[in-house]
Amino acid sequence: MPEFLTLLPPDEAREKLFSHLPKPEIASELIEVPSSLNRISAEDIHAPHPLPDFRRSTVDGFAVQAKDTFGASDSLPAYLNLAGEVPMGAAPKSELEPGHCMTIHTGGMLPEGANAVVMMEYTQSAREGELEIYKSAAEGENVIRIGEDVAQGQLVQAKGTLMRPAEIGGLLALGLTELRVAKKVRVGLISSGDEVIPPEESPRPGQVRDINSHTLAALVTKSGAEPVQYGIVEDTFEALHDTAAEALSECDLVIITAGSSASTRDMTADVINKLGGPGVLVHGINTRPGKPTILGVCDGKAVIGLPGNPVSALVNGYLFVVPLIEKLLGANPRPKATVQAKLTVNLPSQSGREDWWPVRLVSPSPSRSPKGVLREGAGGEVLEAEPIFGKSNLIFSLAAADGLLRISPDATGLSAGEMVEVLLV
Amino acid sequence: MPEFLTLLPPDEAREKLFSHLPKPEIASELIEVPSSLNRISAEDIHAPHPLPDFRRSTVDGFAVQAKDTFGASDSLPAYLNLAGEVPMGAAPKSELEPGHCMTIHTGGMLPEGANAVVMMEYTQSAREGELEIYKSAAEGENVIRIGEDVAQGQLVQAKGTLMRPAEIGGLLALGLTELRVAKKVRVGLISSGDEVIPPEESPRPGQVRDINSHTLAALVTKSGAEPVQYGIVEDTFEALHDTAAEALSECDLVIITAGSSASTRDMTADVINKLGGPGVLVHGINTRPGKPTILGVCDGKAVIGLPGNPVSALVNGYLFVVPLIEKLLGANPRPKATVQAKLTVNLPSQSGREDWWPVRLVSPSPSRSPKGVLREGAGGEVLEAEPIFGKSNLIFSLAAADGLLRISPDATGLSAGEMVEVLLV
Repeated sequence: MPEFLTLLPPDEAREKLFSHLPKPEIASELIEVPSSLNRISAEDIHAPHPLPDFRRSTVDGFAVQAKDTFGASDSLPAYLNLAGEVPMGAAPKSELEPGHCMTIHTGGMLPEGANAVVMMEYTQSAREGELEIYKSAAEGENVIRIGEDVAQGQLVQAKGTLMRPAEIGGLLALGLTELRVAKKVRVGLISSGDEVIPPEESPRPGQVRDINSHTLAALVTKSGAEPVQYGIVEDTFEALHDTAAEALSECDLVIITAGSSASTRDMTADVINKLGGPGVLVHGINTRPGKPTILGVCDGKAVIGLPGNPVSALVNGYLFVVPLIEKLLGANPRPKATVQAKLTVNLPSQSGREDWWPVRLVSPSPSRSPKGVLREGAGGEVLEAEPIFGKSNLIFSLAAADGLLRISPDATGLSAGEMVEVLLV
Repeated sequence: MPEFLTLLPPDEAREKLFSHLPKPEIASELIEVPSSLNRISAEDIHAPHPLPDFRRSTVDGFAVQAKDTFGASDSLPAYLNLAGEVPMGAAPKSELEPGHCMTIHTGGMLPEGANAVVMMEYTQSAREGELEIYKSAAEGENVIRIGEDVAQGQLVQAKGTLMRPAEIGGLLALGLTELRVAKKVRVGLISSGDEVIPPEESPRPGQVRDINSHTLAALVTKSGAEPVQYGIVEDTFEALHDTAAEALSECDLVIITAGSSASTRDMTADVINKLGGPGVLVHGINTRPGKPTILGVCDGKAVIGLPGNPVSALVNGYLFVVPLIEKLLGANPRPKATVQAKLTVNLPSQSGREDWWPVRLVSPSPSRSPKGVLREGAGGEVLEAEPIFGKSNLIFSLAAADGLLRISPDATGLSAGEMVEVLLV
């Protein structure tokens, strides 16, 4: 079994792969900002104008010159002349003279001469055209300054930003309605293995349905890339090589899921070595599941051989394919979605090997639903992490899981009651 | 200011809204399983056949009758006759006779008569047609039983399941290529406010661009629903009422983002009361940002009035719109994506009010990138949560944030150094 002579830890394996890839040239396309959700920006954005670009009130009240209110109190109110109202959505009709005030609404534009807003609650109308103020206002109080959100020319969004609702809002607030984003990376997917048939067919004894190309396609889609299906390839070197060569020429990254037998896995390695230099870089990862993963680079593009075991294929997809897609899209690193939970049982692990356990997150209080709702943010209930036991190649052990629990290579296991971090998948 | 007489805590407000909504009738549609990523299933799925439906080997080795290997050791190997090879993807050509073994690959089908597999590593070929075995195999060793993943008829996926890559794989493994999923909920979005203009226009003094309908559209899309834009409506009762009535008849849920002035917000409440019974249920939430949020039900459909302040609108979208969409889709509750981090500063909070702070997650080690990469799963570096200060209506304070930190109503603040849970947004 020459393939497993040296098993690399996953982090080292990933770094080895990345170090052999050329710096990605991010191909970009111009799209409408409202349609940019989940895309990765491909240009630095500087503010074309300050935001806001006029002084706005943050409350409903009266625009004043702060000095006219100094010393005002319940027992000794300040008296100001009411000089009309600032209309919403338009500039005030006049400047504010000393000794005067103007009615202003939240979001209204401060008149020239005004430098603070007194909240309506601290005022009372005295006579017709006159206002009593019971609280002194500091300069700038209840006012958003010009450029307080962003200054003109400021870098507001770096290249490589994931476009979320807030980013979409930020760009539109600046009037930027189009954006260059990274083109979707094309990921070629090839299945091999003589026992593998398309999911819509009925297996004869000994046959299994191809699910890897579909689970990986979903993972690729979720990661912001475009899956390209090359189907199930006959288990010969020539057939696999020809399809892989075609995929490599048409895609940015190729994934081959081998059949489950050792000979098919070895063939994948041989094909990767033939496709282009340097070929196979990593053959075997010290992780469970996923040992037989192969990482290679052929003429500047990554080719990954994943185990035929559907759980291994998917877990190793999370470990290698997702970060690779992020790199090819030029995405800035972001925190991974996790949940802290209390482990319910002892979990053994072999020292030196990184284990990934599918776990279910359950609420310890029996009245809650079995899958448990974590209250948003801090102060929520502590969930329990319940490992799903079973052989590592059972797809429903992963479908039943809320996430994956990592046992680091330097640990020999985890103890019941320990707080652990579960990667949501 | 009659609107804020009673401010409800967000959880209570949400429950009040939900309790006035009829049990949702989930409209469903039949789609292809490989295209079902991120949809919510609308039917219970029972396994049409066991999985696997034949006994499979989990290793490369030799199929045996366990009893033929009992007592085998390095010093006293068992000798078995080699009776050929199990082909991949087909049934074995014959039964396994006592005293015999068959070469079998990972994933291969066990022949009748065999009940265990000995790993290749524990064997050596003796003479032509004979094998030495150095380790006894227990019955069932290295074998996946029929139905070990799922039994025939077993409930493998409950209605309301979010379709992830593993769920797609599970259904395809069973040959289920089509699935009933919840139809996308239609969410009508209306903006109002005389100061509000479309983002592509240049604001005159006092005007601001409408970003709420676009940030909320992105949030709605991200939550698996379909946004329907009704544009910016003139700031009169009739205009707002007529558009809201149209939206209510065409959508499953309507969101009105008010202009920022108090009068526009009040008008939203009046419109909701006119649209249908019971009308406004909650007027004012004890949270920051987001106090002026209005929750109502009109003739069985939810109508939500969100503040014009873009940060409030989006944060309250996370608090109310997302859970409502999940409810309307019939989605089973799932853990929210969070990250544990160490708070860098003291954060004050008013007791009785729930605060949501935008925070940036940063890596304490300076060599790491500013946004920080969390190592997958347990054992990763502890990130720091750095609150983003600034007035609550600055959209870029949210665009700069990795997530939201909740300060619960019974806390008067959080201390620097505390571990906090950050909701990723």
